[in-house]
Amino acid sequence: MQVLASKVSYQGPVFAVVTDHVLEPGGIESHRDVIRHSGSVVILAVDDVSRPKDPLIVMERQYRHAAGMYLWELPAGRKEPGEDTLPGAKRELLEETGYTARRWTKLVRYFASPGFLGEWMQVYLARGIVAGKAQPEPDENIHIELMPLSQVLGLIHGGKIHDGKTILSVLLYEAGRRSKKY
Amino acid sequence: MQVLASKVSYQGPVFAVVTDHVLEPGGIESHRDVIRHSGSVVILAVDDVSRPKDPLIVMERQYRHAAGMYLWELPAGRKEPGEDTLPGAKRELLEETGYTARRWTKLVRYFASPGFLGEWMQVYLARGIVAGKAQPEPDENIHIELMPLSQVLGLIHGGKIHDGKTILSVLLYEAGRRSKKY
Repeated sequence: MQVLASKVSYQGPVFAVVTDHVLEPGGIESHRDVIRHSGSVVILAVDDVSRPKDPLIVMERQYRHAAGMYLWELPAGRKEPGEDTLPGAKRELLEETGYTARRWTKLVRYFASPGFLGEWMQVYLARGIVAGKAQPEPDENIHIELMPLSQVLGLIHGGKIHDGKTILSVLLYEAGRRSKKY
Repeated sequence: MQVLASKVSYQGPVFAVVTDHVLEPGGIESHRDVIRHSGSVVILAVDDVSRPKDPLIVMERQYRHAAGMYLWELPAGRKEPGEDTLPGAKRELLEETGYTARRWTKLVRYFASPGFLGEWMQVYLARGIVAGKAQPEPDENIHIELMPLSQVLGLIHGGKIHDGKTILSVLLYEAGRRSKKY
């Protein structure tokens, strides 16, 4: 792949739009707008000690202006530029929920919308969680709830969870539990 | 939620960036950049007739400039403005793969990145598929492969599929098959 020309078409506080003139494998020449930001971390934080058969999951409910509604979601956030994913995940979990965790495992890494969104989402499974005091940012108003896995799965299969990272991560965790991986 | 002011900060061919000054529920006042485009459709097209125990899934492999790599993905694309999701899904499946399908069911609808990406992804399950001739757009170079569900699940659990809509949709379909929904 060859970038023939590249310019920043928009620079905002959270992401930039970069317009690239590219020659792609297969000989396709095109102009593509790509969203660039610093990448995201997602945390599936579970208490599987006090309830091993139906672990509790740390869930958030908040209003999302882009979606125009309240959503149930896993804790998540943007990495700081230059920050690694694991420190970023620990920071976001603490800031948004007050929880810390003793055991961190990579669950999955994926592109949320690879047609034009350039950065990975890195999902961590966090176990051995300990409650503490949340430190939300000024523009965050987050309600936290511990929800049994069975209930989250019920909401997913009932079409009541509308956030991609939450559906994907919980289904992958459930599949891993069935195969005794987690 | 109250939009105090709104302006188009960038308008490109595929999406726009809208900067909104908003007063959100809970009294949070903020400026938020939101990506607006016409919404996406995703098609999980399966042949569950000739192989009922391990259906074949229509998979695509293509180079994604935003991701900087080749990805395995389900067929998907942007709705035309004003187009409904079902005609959009039928059009994208035909254009990208040549397949048509007799039975269409809504599988799930979700936000890929609700922090700043405004539109739903609507996923359809397409059954009773019939092969035909693909009609790709000039900037598309797509390799099509029919892959058994078991193989796709193996790639997912091996961390070899990096596209969110594909992981989410296939896991949801597999869960629905286990509960005899599909």
